[in-house]
Amino acid sequence: MNVTILSGGVGGARFTRGLRALLPDAAVTVVANTGDDLWLHGVRVCPDLDTLMYTLGGAVHEEQGWGRRDESRRTSDDLAAYGLGWEWFTLGDLDLATHLARTELLRAGLPLSQVTARLAQRWAPDVTLLPMTDDEVETHVVLADGREVHFEEWWVRHRAALPAVRFVQTNLATAVPAPGVLEAIADADVVVVPPSNPVVSVGTILAVPGVREALRTTTAPVVGVSPVVGGAPVRGMADACLTAIGVETSAAAVARHYGRRPDGVLDAWLVDDRDADAARALRSEGWTAGSANTLMTDVPTTARIAADALALVGALP
Amino acid sequence: MNVTILSGGVGGARFTRGLRALLPDAAVTVVANTGDDLWLHGVRVCPDLDTLMYTLGGAVHEEQGWGRRDESRRTSDDLAAYGLGWEWFTLGDLDLATHLARTELLRAGLPLSQVTARLAQRWAPDVTLLPMTDDEVETHVVLADGREVHFEEWWVRHRAALPAVRFVQTNLATAVPAPGVLEAIADADVVVVPPSNPVVSVGTILAVPGVREALRTTTAPVVGVSPVVGGAPVRGMADACLTAIGVETSAAAVARHYGRRPDGVLDAWLVDDRDADAARALRSEGWTAGSANTLMTDVPTTARIAADALALVGALP
Repeated sequence: MNVTILSGGVGGARFTRGLRALLPDAAVTVVANTGDDLWLHGVRVCPDLDTLMYTLGGAVHEEQGWGRRDESRRTSDDLAAYGLGWEWFTLGDLDLATHLARTELLRAGLPLSQVTARLAQRWAPDVTLLPMTDDEVETHVVLADGREVHFEEWWVRHRAALPAVRFVQTNLATAVPAPGVLEAIADADVVVVPPSNPVVSVGTILAVPGVREALRTTTAPVVGVSPVVGGAPVRGMADACLTAIGVETSAAAVARHYGRRPDGVLDAWLVDDRDADAARALRSEGWTAGSANTLMTDVPTTARIAADALALVGALP
Repeated sequence: MNVTILSGGVGGARFTRGLRALLPDAAVTVVANTGDDLWLHGVRVCPDLDTLMYTLGGAVHEEQGWGRRDESRRTSDDLAAYGLGWEWFTLGDLDLATHLARTELLRAGLPLSQVTARLAQRWAPDVTLLPMTDDEVETHVVLADGREVHFEEWWVRHRAALPAVRFVQTNLATAVPAPGVLEAIADADVVVVPPSNPVVSVGTILAVPGVREALRTTTAPVVGVSPVVGGAPVRGMADACLTAIGVETSAAAVARHYGRRPDGVLDAWLVDDRDADAARALRSEGWTAGSANTLMTDVPTTARIAADALALVGALP
């Protein structure tokens, strides 16, 4: 059974870990958002790819959700003593090794997809981990005062508190899906949109030329899990992103934003039990929708959430 | 009083620290070799500039002679776990902060001389620290089997044990002395060549177009201190470098290799007491030469060595 997941960072990584536990024999491909990637102090940082690699490889800082277990801030603190750089963007000393390794391979001319495969060898995440594209696409945030800042600056430094007018992605129009991305969608038995940020994570993946069309035309069912529970994001500040693009922060509104195939990209939508009303409303509009507990408190619970999502489209093996 | 020093790493840094202690009121400019610099994992490493900055700024790992006090190898070890890069070239976690800071400023478009000044603000080395050039000049070693490797690979990885045929510097022909370098030589009251590697440290500085001519024509006396004591380098493997260019590893041969002005670059040469014969031989050839204890065991002893060198050319204030 081939499962393809379009993922951002923490939420998508935890969901994938649960699905991996549910379906130990499935071939799972994760297409990761790379719009949050950035060059920092000369090294290439790929937040979502690393969160996926560490989470699925058993190396993640579990409480934090990203970064490596047992990291220190010695290098980061010493860098701050120079009064340089983004002091609010901590580079953990072990995470930094990943960035240095990645940068070396990129500078040697390898595309990000091959670099990712090479780095993942160490962590054996038991999924095929693909960047959405090998091109350098970076999400920038246009602020109300006209400034344009990197997404990470808005997200981490300003905690998404500065009103965003819109998001722009550099190089997006000419970006090409990384090798294997379109095939993973076309050849899947089921495609899952996990509870990742629908605007800057999944939305950015969908905006890579060819990806949305691949979702519309794949023979696989596509099921999503709502990242919004009870009118608020389960984690992070997706509400600020949704507001910026004029979408209400509700489980139903996110589903409608993704849209139903063939015009949209989803066949089915799983919401939290607290949003059972939203599932009913969507069903009355013709959606396949259900509700369940969707709080990914631990791996077994998350495996159950994955099962509930797959059951919606009859994709449980 | 203006003192200008042409320096490599550890030896030159320790000598300069002694001279700094001897002449607390002098304006000291250090022109540093940058031929050992390299891009490693995407960050720019400048071994000699950093050794000078740390040594004169009180942050150096004293026993090691280079790198920062209290460094850990956590990041370096984790990088090695990827099986990538130069596992034999350890990037200490605090030193790494310097490389990241430097790389950020270089990537922002600043020339190395301005980057160096910016980084040195933190350490207040009490000297003006100049790279020999803002251009990327890298010393490579041509081996007997025809391979060409970066100097650091030959020096650190192979401990200079692979016979070298010759040294080549990338971009040297078009390199321009960094702002202030030629002026520091022309306007000096005395120029000192410390006991640095005469081939790959001082030799590389001398090979930057314009530097040798500046030394020939400056009104300041130029005095050197032998890095060879009793037929062997005091530190490091300068003998392997000297052998490669056909120069005997002896205090007298190194002086003759530098040469006397106006054809060469020196006016006077200080050797160790163990090489008093060499001083006598040089004097019989017309040199100003003397002998003293030249082992830089601590700062006061090194200050005395600096005094002995300056006394040779009557440059003690």
